[in-house]
Amino acid sequence: MRDYIKKDPWNIIEEGFDPALNRISESIFSIGNGRMGQRANFEEKYSGSSLRGSYVAGVYYPDKTRVGWWKNGYPEYFAKVLNATNWIGIHVNIEGEELDLASAKVTNFKRVLNMQEGLLQRSFVATLPSGKQIEVQSTRFTSIVDCDNAVIRYAVRALNFSGKLSFVPLLDLNVVNQDSNYDEQFWVEISRTAAQCSAAITGETKKTAFHVACAFKLAMEHDGDDVSYTISPFSQDKLVGNTVNFTIEQGQTVSLIKYVAVISSLYADKATIQTTAEASAAAAYSKGYATMLKEQRAAWAKKWAECDITIEGDVAAQQAIRFNILQMNQTYTGEDERLNIGPKGFTGEKYGGVTYWDTEAYCLPFYLKTADPQVARQLLIYRYKHLGRAIENATKLGFKHGAALYPMVTINGEECHNEWEITFEEIHRNGAMSFAIYNYINHTGDVDYLAEYGLEVLIAISRFWRQRVQWSERRKGYVMLGVTGPNEYENNVNNNWYTNLLAQWTLNYTRECLALVKESNPVRYTEIAEKTHLGGHEDELSIWADVAAKIVLPRDNQTGVFIQHDGFMDKELLPMTAIPQGEYPIHKHWSWDRILRSCYIKQADVLQGIYTFEANYDKETLKRNFDFYEPLTVHESSLSPCIHSILASSLGYEELAYKFYLRTARLDLDDYNHDTDDGLHITSMAGTWMAVVEGFGGVRVREGGLQLNPSLPKQWQAYSFRITFRKSLLKITVKPDVICIENESDVGIELAVYGQAHNVLGRQVLRLPR
Amino acid sequence: MRDYIKKDPWNIIEEGFDPALNRISESIFSIGNGRMGQRANFEEKYSGSSLRGSYVAGVYYPDKTRVGWWKNGYPEYFAKVLNATNWIGIHVNIEGEELDLASAKVTNFKRVLNMQEGLLQRSFVATLPSGKQIEVQSTRFTSIVDCDNAVIRYAVRALNFSGKLSFVPLLDLNVVNQDSNYDEQFWVEISRTAAQCSAAITGETKKTAFHVACAFKLAMEHDGDDVSYTISPFSQDKLVGNTVNFTIEQGQTVSLIKYVAVISSLYADKATIQTTAEASAAAAYSKGYATMLKEQRAAWAKKWAECDITIEGDVAAQQAIRFNILQMNQTYTGEDERLNIGPKGFTGEKYGGVTYWDTEAYCLPFYLKTADPQVARQLLIYRYKHLGRAIENATKLGFKHGAALYPMVTINGEECHNEWEITFEEIHRNGAMSFAIYNYINHTGDVDYLAEYGLEVLIAISRFWRQRVQWSERRKGYVMLGVTGPNEYENNVNNNWYTNLLAQWTLNYTRECLALVKESNPVRYTEIAEKTHLGGHEDELSIWADVAAKIVLPRDNQTGVFIQHDGFMDKELLPMTAIPQGEYPIHKHWSWDRILRSCYIKQADVLQGIYTFEANYDKETLKRNFDFYEPLTVHESSLSPCIHSILASSLGYEELAYKFYLRTARLDLDDYNHDTDDGLHITSMAGTWMAVVEGFGGVRVREGGLQLNPSLPKQWQAYSFRITFRKSLLKITVKPDVICIENESDVGIELAVYGQAHNVLGRQVLRLPR
Repeated sequence: MRDYIKKDPWNIIEEGFDPALNRISESIFSIGNGRMGQRANFEEKYSGSSLRGSYVAGVYYPDKTRVGWWKNGYPEYFAKVLNATNWIGIHVNIEGEELDLASAKVTNFKRVLNMQEGLLQRSFVATLPSGKQIEVQSTRFTSIVDCDNAVIRYAVRALNFSGKLSFVPLLDLNVVNQDSNYDEQFWVEISRTAAQCSAAITGETKKTAFHVACAFKLAMEHDGDDVSYTISPFSQDKLVGNTVNFTIEQGQTVSLIKYVAVISSLYADKATIQTTAEASAAAAYSKGYATMLKEQRAAWAKKWAECDITIEGDVAAQQAIRFNILQMNQTYTGEDERLNIGPKGFTGEKYGGVTYWDTEAYCLPFYLKTADPQVARQLLIYRYKHLGRAIENATKLGFKHGAALYPMVTINGEECHNEWEITFEEIHRNGAMSFAIYNYINHTGDVDYLAEYGLEVLIAISRFWRQRVQWSERRKGYVMLGVTGPNEYENNVNNNWYTNLLAQWTLNYTRECLALVKESNPVRYTEIAEKTHLGGHEDELSIWADVAAKIVLPRDNQTGVFIQHDGFMDKELLPMTAIPQGEYPIHKHWSWDRILRSCYIKQADVLQGIYTFEANYDKETLKRNFDFYEPLTVHESSLSPCIHSILASSLGYEELAYKFYLRTARLDLDDYNHDTDDGLHITSMAGTWMAVVEGFGGVRVREGGLQLNPSLPKQWQAYSFRITFRKSLLKITVKPDVICIENESDVGIELAVYGQAHNVLGRQVLRLPR
Repeated sequence: MRDYIKKDPWNIIEEGFDPALNRISESIFSIGNGRMGQRANFEEKYSGSSLRGSYVAGVYYPDKTRVGWWKNGYPEYFAKVLNATNWIGIHVNIEGEELDLASAKVTNFKRVLNMQEGLLQRSFVATLPSGKQIEVQSTRFTSIVDCDNAVIRYAVRALNFSGKLSFVPLLDLNVVNQDSNYDEQFWVEISRTAAQCSAAITGETKKTAFHVACAFKLAMEHDGDDVSYTISPFSQDKLVGNTVNFTIEQGQTVSLIKYVAVISSLYADKATIQTTAEASAAAAYSKGYATMLKEQRAAWAKKWAECDITIEGDVAAQQAIRFNILQMNQTYTGEDERLNIGPKGFTGEKYGGVTYWDTEAYCLPFYLKTADPQVARQLLIYRYKHLGRAIENATKLGFKHGAALYPMVTINGEECHNEWEITFEEIHRNGAMSFAIYNYINHTGDVDYLAEYGLEVLIAISRFWRQRVQWSERRKGYVMLGVTGPNEYENNVNNNWYTNLLAQWTLNYTRECLALVKESNPVRYTEIAEKTHLGGHEDELSIWADVAAKIVLPRDNQTGVFIQHDGFMDKELLPMTAIPQGEYPIHKHWSWDRILRSCYIKQADVLQGIYTFEANYDKETLKRNFDFYEPLTVHESSLSPCIHSILASSLGYEELAYKFYLRTARLDLDDYNHDTDDGLHITSMAGTWMAVVEGFGGVRVREGGLQLNPSLPKQWQAYSFRITFRKSLLKITVKPDVICIENESDVGIELAVYGQAHNVLGRQVLRLPR
């Protein structure tokens, strides 16, 4: 764990330049707008350790996988979101000396991520080896108003010399992915152009043939009148730019404003993509820096008004939760159903920027409660559009009759992962897909989604579960053999309780939904039944009912808890406090087999099931299972502590709830797991938000109704959060003695607080004692 | 399956040249002498498909492993035996045209592996694109008398032209491994030299710094007096040789004899290794081809006299069993305890030429019964010398107090394998190491081996088992969680019966051996006890006794069989005949998860246990388990059918025994698994031999005594085999009505035939009716 980020409610601040922290800061200070993302690499040349990353949403490459021993059914490719044209580059040259923070003496270094306005700012004084000193101030942002545009304002002041200073703004397509499996370059240049004050370059990805065009247009600013400059364009293989030569006097400041456009062929015709990008950069130039900045501020202010969380009396917690909300919004905006949320978003290469079940289990609840329902709906439609591929995937694995297995990792619907114990066995992800449909409808009331899209997905997933179980005559029940639950510290187990539970629930829910659509929309029902050949090969509904009724879900006689999987109770059940000093986290210290046969649980598993279906269990059951499994859980997944925090809140275990919250909230800011340099844990950030809203706030949506059961961690004086629910926008403030519910919309809402029903009309405020 | 090899009792014959079969033949016709091995690549240039392979025993490279997702404890390197200097090369040039069987028209092609004499012979007529015709005859062998030497006699006759003919004998260090994980070259040239009629080159392996020197010396022969030739040496980067230019007349034959030496730094001082090789080649030259050939014949005749098997009335079976015996002897001679037996021997790159449990479980019984006890002893000492590494390996995995886990795959004692389910979990291999000690002593009576070497190994392995189990309060027994049995179609199971059984047996056997050594050699006992800190941290002997007594070994109430592992009986138990047409072998058609949750067994597992400890089970138990597990076994390991064949023989299931024997005997000759091109299944060849001797012959060694229970497959008229047992060499012939036991040694023996004790004095023959 580290502690170099300055605490501030609205800003992430780094003071002083430590090259050893640079990669971590590059992740933390990342900016993005859902369409593109950029690590906080320096504009100028930097020969120190850096992970350069410029990412363009949806632009991926199917890298050939690397495996030890090939197993039948493994996918041959691992799609990864690519590092794309480096558009931030502005090299700086002073009298023939290159500015490079690795060789210069750096003082007064400050890097700020202004969360309120969505800006990255940096300033420093550099003393070059020759002794020449400059002061640099840069500001950049990816516009959330003009999503194809980004802008950089880069200002240099000559502190102790007069002479020549050059800016070399460039667009560099000569980029690689550090995680390339076979050191391949993924980009081919298609075209480029460079003129005075502008340049453009277009690359094509190998195999997938995406085009990405980047363009810039420049403006120069300076103080004083006596500054002259010349501009000359240059163009070479995979690189275009301008050289802007100033002659400046000591004390003078010169600035370059680089208006950038980044456009992919997801949004533009390939034939004209480069001119489209050039026009877009020119439009940004015309709009001007000041206007763009103003619009950016206004747009972020609007976002914050929908989803901000305030925490009084704990600036570290305040900073952290805003950071998480910022990054969620920088990653995904819900404007395009072809996009999704990679575990690292646009902040690194790890996990390939591709989609996991994290989206349905963690991100969806965030967007459902903080954004227009359309945003969450797009996430669902993403999976609907992949249904054909999920059916293909299941077919490859030997399933039939339109059964679907959604991939563990994907960008285009095809499975990318290639560890058998995950790829083939961690099938609970299929349940996350069906539960997401329920969750969406429960939150939004958009029942029409079922007939239009959801039902087909549910049928295909139900078919999978029905075929995946088998009858055990000895147990007089259906068993599900050879699975991996959310706890990936167990592989190839039988009857994972959570997975069996999801299967059971899906089979029941699908039958309910079929009945509902049959009743409400018989024409569409018939259409779907025909399209899916429902009941064509067996009496599916009866069999699904039978499987749901008879699937084994063992409960332990001795302890009364649900058994994580067959044989779990044979283990030596020692609390995680028994792990010897220095051997934690166990995945870094123990061999895999030792982890597997230990009782230690990587992330919520039985408790994930209880969390998901909390309404079905009384507090006693929750307590019994929590008390049993919590001490065994090592939380070596960033997705784990939030679930435990929420359940602890539910049980009134306030200390524990706060402990787990802390662990998730500042995971990246404090580099808790020593891996922030790889990128931020974007999807687990949604979990942090859940820990506040569902945990401390006790927010639940049950049968379409909103419930609140707020508690207040004793470390906080007060907190507030905003949620959007069925067209109402509520700001809920929790103080030691009062709960205040402000309806900031015009639409009234009925809700329950501590089990008591209340009506809050539009623009009204409800105050309740605590 | 293919059927292009001509049947012959003593020869492997290929007639006609089919480039599509070339890689298969390159494997089948491999030669070796335990010190080096050579695939049957052509001497002349060949631009068609070929896997060139020249291997030198014990010379390996730790190639960086390739894994998908790294897990803690994985080894970083996979040692592989290297493709080394190509010493067979003799390029042939006729009037400027290169002989290349890929471009020439080839007729009368014949390739013969003369098993009786250990020779590879080849002859053909080639019509070059120009129309010039030559007849080629080549013979080569790796000497089993002068183990550093090989020799090639290469004769060319001009059939339809007179003119220039060149031989270009060469030594080529510019070789690669096709299985190199990152396309690296593993060799660096150290020195080279070339003179008239001789050349030498020395390479060093990267990282491991082995040196291998190759040298040749040439002799030329020709018929008629009017043949003139010139010789010029050449030397270039990684390549040395001579060019021998003949001018010949139509009908004349010219021959080149290439006397080769291949010496590694395992056997020579690096400083002088190249001159050592040159001297060795010169010595071979001095001895001369005719003498070398004579000695080779005599040496092989002696080998066959010790281990030949004859089969009357079935030439295919006769050819196959000799082929297997030949290859076993070409691979390992027992002269050097640093060497071992790779699954492909010297015939290919697959499995890296490194050591598996195949050695102890399959090869050891072969050498124990067919060779001097010293040979088997060397195999045991190989593991003894690796004990330190095995302890290190276990320590890395979290075991303590000198517990040892022998590696799954190794060449120097370090683990190379990197699939967690095998590397960390397929720990029954540790039991194979301890059982091998018992097996060796049982066969040889060499009890001294215990005190000298064996006991330390047994203690370390017992410590492993003791720590690997854990007490289950619920089952009131010790359980062993998270293992993979011999059936690799199940991973990460609990309480694999076979593994638990081996653990139990080892713990008991170790205690017995401790008592024995304490009694017989108290000084050495104390020495070992001190060296191993026996009992230093706990009362080890009592605890081992407790674990052995209380380890769970579940038997199924319903069927009475031993349960392969926990939960096996929950599976849908369908016979392998239920596998749909076209889906066999399942590892090529089913995804891995489907295989895992199916009931299908890759290779003998419970039955491997019953085979190993057959004496402990009555025929009813054997029958019950065989009848249950046999139909579930798909034999997708080449090591499986032999065990089933032996057990079937034991049960009097003659048809089945013969069926399984056939499947293993001609596995490579008929390319049964479509993978002979990768190399031969050397270790499973030992299994074939076991199927004859232990299966049909019913040979057992029980409490140091020899037992025979011969049966005669009805497809055979008679068969005989030779075994060496406690200084007696016996030839056992089984005919329909008589069993004939000839003692070909001077040492008498007491043995049991069908349960009846007999004495066979030296040089006596015992005839018994059947």
